[in-house]
Amino acid sequence: MTDGMINRDDLDAANTALNAFTELDPDATSGEGPLADLTIGVKANIAVRGMKWTAGIEGFADRTAEQDAPAVAALREAGAAIIGTLNMEEAALGAKTDNPFFGATQNPHRIGYTPGGSSGGSGAAVAAGLCDAALGTDTMGSVRIPAAYCGIYGLKPTRGSVSQEGLEIVDPSLDSIGPLAQSLDVLDACSQVLVDGYDDSQVIDNIVLLDGLGGVECEPAVREGYEAATTACGADATLSLPHDLSRIRFAGFIMSSLGLSRELADMLATNPDGLSEQLRHLLTYGPKRGAGDLAEDRRILTEVSDALHSAIAPGTALLMPTAPQAAFPHADRAPANQADFTCLANIAGLPSVTIPSGMTADGLPVAVQLVGAAGNDAGVLARARELDAALAAFRRPELFVET
Amino acid sequence: MTDGMINRDDLDAANTALNAFTELDPDATSGEGPLADLTIGVKANIAVRGMKWTAGIEGFADRTAEQDAPAVAALREAGAAIIGTLNMEEAALGAKTDNPFFGATQNPHRIGYTPGGSSGGSGAAVAAGLCDAALGTDTMGSVRIPAAYCGIYGLKPTRGSVSQEGLEIVDPSLDSIGPLAQSLDVLDACSQVLVDGYDDSQVIDNIVLLDGLGGVECEPAVREGYEAATTACGADATLSLPHDLSRIRFAGFIMSSLGLSRELADMLATNPDGLSEQLRHLLTYGPKRGAGDLAEDRRILTEVSDALHSAIAPGTALLMPTAPQAAFPHADRAPANQADFTCLANIAGLPSVTIPSGMTADGLPVAVQLVGAAGNDAGVLARARELDAALAAFRRPELFVET
Repeated sequence: MTDGMINRDDLDAANTALNAFTELDPDATSGEGPLADLTIGVKANIAVRGMKWTAGIEGFADRTAEQDAPAVAALREAGAAIIGTLNMEEAALGAKTDNPFFGATQNPHRIGYTPGGSSGGSGAAVAAGLCDAALGTDTMGSVRIPAAYCGIYGLKPTRGSVSQEGLEIVDPSLDSIGPLAQSLDVLDACSQVLVDGYDDSQVIDNIVLLDGLGGVECEPAVREGYEAATTACGADATLSLPHDLSRIRFAGFIMSSLGLSRELADMLATNPDGLSEQLRHLLTYGPKRGAGDLAEDRRILTEVSDALHSAIAPGTALLMPTAPQAAFPHADRAPANQADFTCLANIAGLPSVTIPSGMTADGLPVAVQLVGAAGNDAGVLARARELDAALAAFRRPELFVET
Repeated sequence: MTDGMINRDDLDAANTALNAFTELDPDATSGEGPLADLTIGVKANIAVRGMKWTAGIEGFADRTAEQDAPAVAALREAGAAIIGTLNMEEAALGAKTDNPFFGATQNPHRIGYTPGGSSGGSGAAVAAGLCDAALGTDTMGSVRIPAAYCGIYGLKPTRGSVSQEGLEIVDPSLDSIGPLAQSLDVLDACSQVLVDGYDDSQVIDNIVLLDGLGGVECEPAVREGYEAATTACGADATLSLPHDLSRIRFAGFIMSSLGLSRELADMLATNPDGLSEQLRHLLTYGPKRGAGDLAEDRRILTEVSDALHSAIAPGTALLMPTAPQAAFPHADRAPANQADFTCLANIAGLPSVTIPSGMTADGLPVAVQLVGAAGNDAGVLARARELDAALAAFRRPELFVET
């Protein structure tokens, strides 16, 4: 167990304040291997043998996984203790983690605030020291946004490098299972186990920036953190995307709605009340979209993917803020631009690591991310490590510091 | 003008037998530049200033282009004489070139047989020596299939490397404007002018083959030509695709139907009789496809694109037959597997060059293609040149040999 962690006997009590875990097994045993010291929580849309596999959906409240997803099996095989499943946005569509059936998860940096989503339970549990690491899933930013809002580290791996078996899919082209951790050492150790073709010898030499940050309005602390990061990294080139980030993100949302409406077709047909009215509404966007608009969405996603592949050669990384804002009160509506930066890595299938880049004036974390070429997961993480040392922006939430 | 060309005074007569050109300007003048010796025909879905811009669609029969498409302007700027527009499959959807409004184009190797499509006029005109080169467009194989059936050379460039302005689009993610020619010298000269980032110094060292040819049934002569090519090239690796080629091609067709139904939405709404009943039927496949199936199609296309990008690094090319069969009688129905091989380059946005690989026992040409990494257009063409020298399979159609 790493420093600053909650004692296992106190997990239940600590979790009550946060509602990060929806199922908790403090007595889970460790095995042997490189992760033998770690406790790991798993987002509730990933199958953990013998635990509820809800994906945050009421209609799946009683579904129990019979087998571990390969990603979970790999962690267990490497010695990790799998101590429970974590709250999330219903069906992983959205980025607040105020679940209509399983309740809101709190941000350990400020109770009453969102931890981000859709892997909000994963972000909160790791930041609060309830577990050393967690698995999340990232369709448009759902690993990286909660990592950013909770002030920790997260990796969205290269598309296809972590098996999607045992994952309640949103859109198979966009989805990646990825780890969150309180340090890059732990993130790296988990990534070694999870990511196919993870290659420690990779190096990132070139940094690309998004021209004018794609016009996305960022909060001052986000901008300052980003500027500190660009100062630390330098920049070798800038990239202009062929479409507005808000339009790109909307095209990604449409594909998510389309994909998820397919995955949940049975439930929509036989047990629609198993889904919230809000989610059912979100699931109409994809299917009701006209052929012309869908073709245009597809064009946009393809052009953006090509532009990113072209600008991000092996050995190069794109540096951007992770989210345009810090965490906000659960009572507020989520800002529309929340996933404008993060969605790019999903659309292009590229790996991305998020690290803390600073704090707002009133003490909430903000973050930057590096996006690398396909298969450059380890290189991006190594470059993030250098940048993290320069920024030294990580801070444990005061609420749970025990060391 | 290169060897074996029809004299300009005889163009009209020669064209009557083939119905390759739908509009012909034998007196078009040349300019100065690297293409000053060449006459070039342009597929009727690409705008040529002052000529009909029909895209093979009755509803556009009276539409005249006011400006050259940038691809045409570039050829003209390099000195080429643009001598007319070429027949094509209606709206570029299909691969026979038996146009319901503008008639069937004949294969110069055998009258009564299809030249392939959708750029059938381009293939026939070049093979017969009506022009030195032609522009076609390739959405699922529409440059390469007619080049193969007509025994000539063709390039589908990297996605995005030739402007789509002035092109009647099918699906912007799949479409590429590309040249056809009777020799690789002429193909290369045109590609230099047309393709952004064309880099003569590129080299292809590695050859990948499709494991078991993806299970696609090929005619004996196609298989023999492919075997001769693999013997000449060697093979460094094999690639197994994550889906059946027929399923992949169908997903591409759905996106083509979806995209084209968008492009033709106005005509469908205001002048449906401007389209054939057969085309209107094909345009229902995309829009009527359920959300679930569309999401699955998208998954397949993404997975295949990723697999191809992963297997075809810069300096590597995938060697395959171009089409599984030689040309067939116009009276026959087109084989379903016609575009099974060609569609892969479109789906992944990669460059591909087709060259003749032999002849059937009864004298019809067959072909192989090389598919390279994005931006490796010149490298693929250089490798095709070596292979072409080894195979020496190009033969002019007897009908028009005048040298």
